Amino acid sequence: MSTPQRTLHLNAFLMSTGHHEASWRLPESNPRASTDITHYQNLARIAERGTFDSIFFADSPVIFGDVGRRPAGKLEPTVLLTAIAAATEKIGLIATASTTYNDPFNLARRFASVDWVSGGRAGWNVVTTAGPEAAQNFGIDDQPAHATRYERAAEFLDVAAKLWDSWQDDAVLADKEAGIWADSAKVRPIDHDGKHFRVRGPLNVPRSPQGRPVIVQAGSSENGKGLAAKYAEAVFTAQQTLEGAQSFYADVKSRAVALGRRAESIKILPGIVPVIASTEAEALRLERELDQLIRPEYARVELAKTLRVAPEDLPLDRQLPAELPDEDSIEGAKSRYTLIVELARCEKLTVRQLIGRLGGGRGHLTFAGTPDQVADAIQLWFENGAADGFNIMPAVLPSGLETFVDSVVPVLRRRGLFRSEYSGNTLRDHYGLERPANHRVEAALFDSAAS
Amino acid sequence: MSTPQRTLHLNAFLMSTGHHEASWRLPESNPRASTDITHYQNLARIAERGTFDSIFFADSPVIFGDVGRRPAGKLEPTVLLTAIAAATEKIGLIATASTTYNDPFNLARRFASVDWVSGGRAGWNVVTTAGPEAAQNFGIDDQPAHATRYERAAEFLDVAAKLWDSWQDDAVLADKEAGIWADSAKVRPIDHDGKHFRVRGPLNVPRSPQGRPVIVQAGSSENGKGLAAKYAEAVFTAQQTLEGAQSFYADVKSRAVALGRRAESIKILPGIVPVIASTEAEALRLERELDQLIRPEYARVELAKTLRVAPEDLPLDRQLPAELPDEDSIEGAKSRYTLIVELARCEKLTVRQLIGRLGGGRGHLTFAGTPDQVADAIQLWFENGAADGFNIMPAVLPSGLETFVDSVVPVLRRRGLFRSEYSGNTLRDHYGLERPANHRVEAALFDSAAS
Ligand SMILES: Cc1cc2nc3c(=O)[nH]c(=O)nc-3n(C[C@H](O)[C@H](O)[C@H](O)COP(=O)(O)O)c2cc1C
Ligand SMILES: Cc1cc2nc3c(=O)[nH]c(=O)nc-3n(C[C@H](O)[C@H](O)[C@H](O)COP(=O)(O)O)c2cc1C
Repeated sequence: MSTPQRTLHLNAFLMSTGHHEASWRLPESNPRASTDITHYQNLARIAERGTFDSIFFADSPVIFGDVGRRPAGKLEPTVLLTAIAAATEKIGLIATASTTYNDPFNLARRFASVDWVSGGRAGWNVVTTAGPEAAQNFGIDDQPAHATRYERAAEFLDVAAKLWDSWQDDAVLADKEAGIWADSAKVRPIDHDGKHFRVRGPLNVPRSPQGRPVIVQAGSSENGKGLAAKYAEAVFTAQQTLEGAQSFYADVKSRAVALGRRAESIKILPGIVPVIASTEAEALRLERELDQLIRPEYARVELAKTLRVAPEDLPLDRQLPAELPDEDSIEGAKSRYTLIVELARCEKLTVRQLIGRLGGGRGHLTFAGTPDQVADAIQLWFENGAADGFNIMPAVLPSGLETFVDSVVPVLRRRGLFRSEYSGNTLRDHYGLERPANHRVEAALFDSAAS
Repeated sequence: MSTPQRTLHLNAFLMSTGHHEASWRLPESNPRASTDITHYQNLARIAERGTFDSIFFADSPVIFGDVGRRPAGKLEPTVLLTAIAAATEKIGLIATASTTYNDPFNLARRFASVDWVSGGRAGWNVVTTAGPEAAQNFGIDDQPAHATRYERAAEFLDVAAKLWDSWQDDAVLADKEAGIWADSAKVRPIDHDGKHFRVRGPLNVPRSPQGRPVIVQAGSSENGKGLAAKYAEAVFTAQQTLEGAQSFYADVKSRAVALGRRAESIKILPGIVPVIASTEAEALRLERELDQLIRPEYARVELAKTLRVAPEDLPLDRQLPAELPDEDSIEGAKSRYTLIVELARCEKLTVRQLIGRLGGGRGHLTFAGTPDQVADAIQLWFENGAADGFNIMPAVLPSGLETFVDSVVPVLRRRGLFRSEYSGNTLRDHYGLERPANHRVEAALFDSAAS
């Protein structure tokens, strides 16, 4: 084969007992999984057996909603990734961290450290964190405005890149004879002085195996897509239809190309909640069984918060109220807001039905079927300009991930769409991304040429 | 034996190739150890074989001094501890983090997470971080004043304790039948509103195995001792003489007792750099060999910075200048400053000799001798009101730690001073510290009794 084949990328989005909000209530589930590191290590090993590109954890520095509803405690993601790194060998490790509620020096250092301890497997899902609840854990009453959060995110990423590049790759000489550990000309301050941050640097960690961790992005508002186009190397997104996914895919790629990037340098990975069984009827039965375990009173309070209405205004067996705020006035998660409203309106869902849909996949595509049907759906999107791969979100864990690995992955492999073994050792290798050049070296060369 | 015996506590203070600044230049040393996680995992396993209470990492969010001098890159400590947790079973895991350059919510969460993934082995060495260099990585030109840093540290610890206690131990019900995951009455906001912080809470991590991580403190100024007396459960300190150590020991314990604590609830652990050989002469030869590898020009620049004089004012073969700033005017590390000046003055050291002493142990007691002599020194301090144990700081790693474990630990065990196996699983178990009650539960009981 001389033309390099485009391969599918699969990321396992892991969440305690699974993405279905009632999954913890199943007899098979360990309801204390969210603080049990062996649970996560086991999940990662299953995904690695399935030669997934990566695993992923969502995060927010706050408890959102009622702790009665579902497992709410979450280990800090860089700690979680590190513990998993020790239990795996190849699989990429992606965690979410907020640019609104972290300092660039500390966070850049943490991801560089995870990249070192994992041998080059770290990725960072960059989010701006919606909602006043998180803000109040950090001394402010309300979230900064949506645009301000994204502006800060962009500058945060600039600072982080400078810090990761503040050591040249060959800075450490380790010259025992001469007694010189590193070349101080190759470890330079960054002297960043911007609107949101002033950071002197250099980082106190040498440049990591991947140069920089892989940058992932998951906000689909206009600002979110703008950030993705400039910085992201992978994008997670919630898409309900092939057409919607195609237009998102084309939009993000063309924005990246307009900024001088190659279209292949940014991978688009929509989420899918696969409910798999040996027959379609059986899969649908499984899905219904789970939905019946949802307690709608919890979910309704949360939905009301997102829609900025009172819970009483959402009778369970009626459609959404005709009058709702429009996206421009939403300062939290804009694209999620719009997705929910559009889903409810287009499919004429009652509040109860909407809660069922969101409870299963939180706005992501839920797909119930046989292994072949699931593989068909994946192939359709992959081959028709809608996805470079998928963010697999099992409704129930570990069983849903095991079933996917044991029944869908073999089909994808047989069809030549997916790898049977890892060809490299880093997350960049799996995603087919280049190791970034050190832009500070280039800048320095430019400086000395000019002077 | 009916009277519970007082046992010695040993902590292994780990630092890439060892505490001697020239250790990386030895043929045996891996000069890239500072970013090699297998190096640290190996060290921790050696310490665990020696039934040490704990391992410890110093930290500062900055590169201090010249990267030519010695290994300068440092993995972020909570990441480091987590990776080591996965490679060990019992040993306590203590890392340093700054209260000046972190947010309480994020840091409290990280240590709670390390406590979960390690099964109750986490400890936090609370420092206030001296020097303008660190400040400049966080948007400010100079460090906050010494007193302000300690004031912030105290409030930081109050907030952290409230966050760790924001979930009652029995908050998670995991009631599948009723569909109630946690009791929302037992997961409460903390609504902290203080001079330095406003934090709503609750933490997004359930109360961890130890209730709270063990609090360690290592600043010996007046403010430092005050903080230790109130909050610390273990104190690291640099002491050069038995008398000095005794007076520090009595001082800190009596301050704690004055605040209503039991003297045993705070362990005092002076540092010792043991250079061990089968004869005393051989040990001294080893020490000299290492000192000859020091490049004094690097060390002099750093010493001048600490003393706030110009490097030219420190001729290598003269004693320190007669005129030096006094401790009150030092806003950085006060106790370290005083220790260095007193050491030089009392022993009439030249700058070159002082640099040798600091290069070996950075102000900690260096002790060269046979295993029995080292055990004698430890026993003397332990039995004469100077120490509850020691912070062991091998000059060269891993060999210095191996030698200590294989030659000194057996002597201490034979003398009945030190454990032969772990009797518990948590760091609190090893240090003989109680699991703290949840003070927010007590406060709530009090509230409801009053109302
Ligand atoms: C798969 C996926 C995962 C996400 N994970 C997180 C997360 O962990 N934390 C978070 O704050 N937002 C998360 N988001 C939401 C977005 O990153 C973003 O914060 C939110 O949509 C607001 O951005 P927007 O206004 O640009 O849409 C996720 C979105 C998707 C599609
Ligand atoms: C064994 C030991 C370890 C220490 N580790 C650190 C450290 O990792 N980071 C740090 O900033 N200071 C460290 N210190 C210094 C003190 O914690 C403190 O920051 C410094 O002495 C200033 O405090 P002081 O002015 O109260 O003496 C350490 C001190 C000792 C004795």
